Amino acid sequence: MDDNIYKITEVVGSSSKSIEDAIEKAVARTAETVKDLGWFEVTDTRGHIADGKVAHYQVSLRIGFTHHPTA
Amino acid sequence: MDDNIYKITEVVGSSSKSIEDAIEKAVARTAETVKDLGWFEVTDTRGHIADGKVAHYQVSLRIGFTHHPTA
Amino acid sequence: MDDNIYKITEVVGSSSKSIEDAIEKAVARTAETVKDLGWFEVTDTRGHIADGKVAHYQVSLRIGFTHHPTA
Amino acid sequence: MDDNIYKITEVVGSSSKSIEDAIEKAVARTAETVKDLGWFEVTDTRGHIADGKVAHYQVSLRIGFTHHPTA
Amino acid sequence: MDDNIYKITEVVGSSSKSIEDAIEKAVARTAETVKDLGWFEVTDTRGHIADGKVAHYQVSLRIGFTHHPTA
Amino acid sequence: MDDNIYKITEVVGSSSKSIEDAIEKAVARTAETVKDLGWFEVTDTRGHIADGKVAHYQVSLRIGFTHHPTA
Amino acid sequence: MDDNIYKITEVVGSSSKSIEDAIEKAVARTAETVKDLGWFEVTDTRGHIADGKVAHYQVSLRIGFTHHPTA
Amino acid sequence: MDDNIYKITEVVGSSSKSIEDAIEKAVARTAETVKDLGWFEVTDTRGHIADGKVAHYQVSLRIGFTHHPTA
Amino acid sequence: MDDNIYKITEVVGSSSKSIEDAIEKAVARTAETVKDLGWFEVTDTRGHIADGKVAHYQVSLRIGFTHHPTA
Amino acid sequence: MDDNIYKITEVVGSSSKSIEDAIEKAVARTAETVKDLGWFEVTDTRGHIADGKVAHYQVSLRIGFTHHPTA
Amino acid sequence: MDDNIYKITEVVGSSSKSIEDAIEKAVARTAETVKDLGWFEVTDTRGHIADGKVAHYQVSLRIGFTHHPTA
Amino acid sequence: MDDNIYKITEVVGSSSKSIEDAIEKAVARTAETVKDLGWFEVTDTRGHIADGKVAHYQVSLRIGFTHHPTA
Repeated sequence: MDDNIYKITEVVGSSSKSIEDAIEKAVARTAETVKDLGWFEVTDTRGHIADGKVAHYQVSLRIGFTHHPTA
Repeated sequence: MDDNIYKITEVVGSSSKSIEDAIEKAVARTAETVKDLGWFEVTDTRGHIADGKVAHYQVSLRIGFTHHPTA
Repeated sequence: MDDNIYKITEVVGSSSKSIEDAIEKAVARTAETVKDLGWFEVTDTRGHIADGKVAHYQVSLRIGFTHHPTA
Repeated sequence: MDDNIYKITEVVGSSSKSIEDAIEKAVARTAETVKDLGWFEVTDTRGHIADGKVAHYQVSLRIGFTHHPTA
Repeated sequence: MDDNIYKITEVVGSSSKSIEDAIEKAVARTAETVKDLGWFEVTDTRGHIADGKVAHYQVSLRIGFTHHPTA
Repeated sequence: MDDNIYKITEVVGSSSKSIEDAIEKAVARTAETVKDLGWFEVTDTRGHIADGKVAHYQVSLRIGFTHHPTA
Repeated sequence: MDDNIYKITEVVGSSSKSIEDAIEKAVARTAETVKDLGWFEVTDTRGHIADGKVAHYQVSLRIGFTHHPTA
Repeated sequence: MDDNIYKITEVVGSSSKSIEDAIEKAVARTAETVKDLGWFEVTDTRGHIADGKVAHYQVSLRIGFTHHPTA
Repeated sequence: MDDNIYKITEVVGSSSKSIEDAIEKAVARTAETVKDLGWFEVTDTRGHIADGKVAHYQVSLRIGFTHHPTA
Repeated sequence: MDDNIYKITEVVGSSSKSIEDAIEKAVARTAETVKDLGWFEVTDTRGHIADGKVAHYQVSLRIGFTHHPTA
Repeated sequence: MDDNIYKITEVVGSSSKSIEDAIEKAVARTAETVKDLGWFEVTDTRGHIADGKVAHYQVSLRIGFTHHPTA
Repeated sequence: MDDNIYKITEVVGSSSKSIEDAIEKAVARTAETVKDLGWFEVTDTRGHIADGKVAHYQVSLRIGFTHHPTA
């Protein structure tokens, strides 16, 4: 935790199963293209309703990752 | 998604099991009397404690639904 | 619910399993030293990421309890 | 406090006398048409001024009540 | 502006033309079923995008109206 | 309520008696130097404590008044 | 943009035509008595309703201007 | 007001009479166990409703007090 | 609306004409480099003033778009 | 701290050196024309960037001062 | 960072020198009586003014520390 | 300041020395890969504590830069 710089990216995960599943999918997908993810913060929990039932949870996250210096 | 008008109703779902269960009960109960529910947004997550344990989750939702014109 | 006074303490529960588990651990641990816990309110949902996966959920709570008069 | 569902309605009480009087009038009027009111939360305290004096306090409330299942 | 009580309803107007058009449609539609509308407050301005262009503005309003006593 | 312009001034009223008294003093004092005060909004309610008792309520207000054109 | 000091004044513009018209009227009126206006920020968009139609938009602005040193 | 350190404790006062009475009870009770209380700030005003009437005001306070160094 | 992941980018559109024009320019410019834009949310409405007149509206947007999996 | 009335003015200090320097310049400049300044509160910390470096810190303050009665 | 529980305490540090000095004094004083402090978050930056100059910075902090289980 | 479009990126600078140093490092690192940085806004000031002392300041920034059209 030296004098690092971090960047924050915002993503929205969505899942028909649970809030945690939406978060985990959003983190996993982000990890495919961004290295060194460090933490997340939930900023919004929403969802879609179809036929009077919750169809999808949609969870907005701010995800922080280490910003490596340009070599 | 033409030039529709939507209305928002606020409900609090409560469940001894989980946050998702509280949300789903609130949506299901609202669907008994309101048609064409479209989305929800969580505004507050609270709960009651009894004997040092979580007794109930209480989740506040804003639920949006289509406002049909008066025929 | 007569003219009681309540106090509020802030805790952060953490769990590798779920948001509810983090809340329940925080409540249980607080109950070890504080009597008459009454309610909680979630103020923040965050987490740590390791190897591109959610490692821990960290849930911040405000917990209210009855403030008994000094005998 | 079993697995109940609550609804929230928003009202603005107004009184030339005091903030409490504005709240109490808003609650009393709401109770004329809605049963099982349970709690309120003040969201805004405003007022009108006439001739350099407070003419009316206007207090915005969110009022929660039990949402009974459809029989 | 005597000791009246007001109620607040939340609606979302939508328009492909402008923010004002979305507001005016929401007010007009609400006026079809609610009497004595008095004021509104914009709480959210959002929209949908299709083919890289704004398809609809969606404006959330809180609309206040006089709550007449039950006769 | 034609196409008027209003200005807003911020004041803090203080009173050892009540919240309403602090508001009314702030409005009365402002009215000594500003004409056509129209409304107020409470933004903060604080106070000083001395010897374990409330010594003063301090209420922050935004006060709106008509901005007359320069003649 | 050297080491200047700026002041902020709060105004509410009102217009029966549009949100932009309310903003522009508020800025123009403020410019009659304050020099070197530099920027504005919308803090609130409200309005009055009469006969089920938007009668006036009321837009609250914070307006910044250069604070010249006393000569 | 030298280079002192202050601590903040959160309490909820409750009263069937008035908002001020709830504040004063919360301050008085806190003063029984904490010395050198200096100020408070209201963060929330809520209440319970029974039989269509306000049963209790519940006012949440942050109370600041001087943090004396360990001797 | 299956289990998709969305990303959010923040842009500020600016226009000398109107708030809608600033939004539409920001969306059009973003669409030049990002595919599958889905929605936007206004987070801030500001502007520059020159010679006592609104010179530019500056509207901050959060724009959401589909995050396609890496093939 | 008797039943005084306070007024609040908003200023933005700017400095190429530090946040504290921006605050102190804003306070000093305000003190040239306003007597009996009592406290300040930082509401925003921003800055300008030129050539990839911080050019100026810009700190927004609310400054409170005693409102003397008209003699 | 296993399944630990953290507690949060709120303190206000004050310093005539700088914001950082106020933070560091608050942390140091808290560390005299609380073990295993882990992080802090600034919630408010205020100050006192005397003779038209900043007399003290007052910085409010939430400080998190590990909540050890009762042995 | 013609009809430009700006983008906003979020970064967290960290420094063991001061808040300004954390901001300046975050700006300098961002300038290595992004051209035409224009302004920043502090959204959060946090820090890590080790051995009862501030180990690092961590300052979250939103940084705005000009979005050049695609050539």
